[in-house]
Amino acid sequence: MSYRKLDVGRIILVRVKHDSEIIKFVTELAKKNSIMTATFTAIGALKWAKLGFYDQEKHEYLESSLLAPQEIASCMGNISIKEGEPFVHAHAVLADQNGNTKAGHLLEGKVFAAEIHLTELIGEELVRKNDAVTGLSLWKI
Amino acid sequence: MSYRKLDVGRIILVRVKHDSEIIKFVTELAKKNSIMTATFTAIGALKWAKLGFYDQEKHEYLESSLLAPQEIASCMGNISIKEGEPFVHAHAVLADQNGNTKAGHLLEGKVFAAEIHLTELIGEELVRKNDAVTGLSLWKI
Amino acid sequence: MSYRKLDVGRIILVRVKHDSEIIKFVTELAKKNSIMTATFTAIGALKWAKLGFYDQEKHEYLESSLLAPQEIASCMGNISIKEGEPFVHAHAVLADQNGNTKAGHLLEGKVFAAEIHLTELIGEELVRKNDAVTGLSLWKI
Repeated sequence: MSYRKLDVGRIILVRVKHDSEIIKFVTELAKKNSIMTATFTAIGALKWAKLGFYDQEKHEYLESSLLAPQEIASCMGNISIKEGEPFVHAHAVLADQNGNTKAGHLLEGKVFAAEIHLTELIGEELVRKNDAVTGLSLWKI
Repeated sequence: MSYRKLDVGRIILVRVKHDSEIIKFVTELAKKNSIMTATFTAIGALKWAKLGFYDQEKHEYLESSLLAPQEIASCMGNISIKEGEPFVHAHAVLADQNGNTKAGHLLEGKVFAAEIHLTELIGEELVRKNDAVTGLSLWKI
Repeated sequence: MSYRKLDVGRIILVRVKHDSEIIKFVTELAKKNSIMTATFTAIGALKWAKLGFYDQEKHEYLESSLLAPQEIASCMGNISIKEGEPFVHAHAVLADQNGNTKAGHLLEGKVFAAEIHLTELIGEELVRKNDAVTGLSLWKI
């Protein structure tokens, strides 16, 4: 069992811009500030969202769109390097006006308001490479 | 894109008192220990809870009460300053005895048992101010 | 109100081995590396899972099995000492191919792919002891 030991770098709290797309926002935050490895959480609300479920047999994502406003009840993710660039991987649990939830891989989300807590991790590069067994792009450790 | 860079302060693990109200508990923990900025997570179980959903058009919270016991499947939140005092903002995903979930803004929760992991963040003050676009009290960064 | 103040130890990112059981994996990671106290989060996907709900009156776990593949939309947990050994306590929110969720105490999960972010916490020992009021094994702080 091998793992990557890293050190804490910058700790960032950020208010996501109204009407921005959250995955793009985090990706740009990383690129502009040369954050190559990080973990983050987010809470807030989205105007709409697109979630993914990875079909473990067919090795492809099923996508579903939530067109109504949603609370971001939970969002956790990480940043690592894919093809030389910071790449965001995030999962979320979203709740509608009745508190009913949908969850999965967060592909896109239009921000009403969101607060992100990001912890940069520094040390040896953490790179995603294609993994034959799962068909996913996974950490090469 | 502007953000607040902070440093790690105290790291705290705390067992929440049985029968306390979780938001009040975290608020008092912050006030008694002069924790003005922090992020936290919690897992455990609640006897009952009250969740909120923010109506993005009417700019008001819809509240719903869960009267039966719930697992805290996820709870993530932060502390920042509102009107000069530490203010707790938390979202949660709760699960009933069948594993079915309700989620949203955690307004109140009566604790059966809960474990909190809180990371104090130190640096420039992080203050909430009313935001005209959303009607929410958001970070002024 | 008493709490345990700890310091950050090792920060670890780890890709969980395909087909391993996630709770066993984290427990072994802790034992092999002498991690006695930690918090962690995980995202990824499971082939199947077993969730628990603690009956607050009968003081026993109700278990339910999810036999189909699930996204780990959220998983948060901690490690502390129980009977002299590192003990993993984790809660999760899982989502099926339609984005529908089940959540609770994560008893077992067969990993398709998963990424764990673990923060070791160092300082005074954090030990679980049986608590008469709840029937649970809780932190003695």
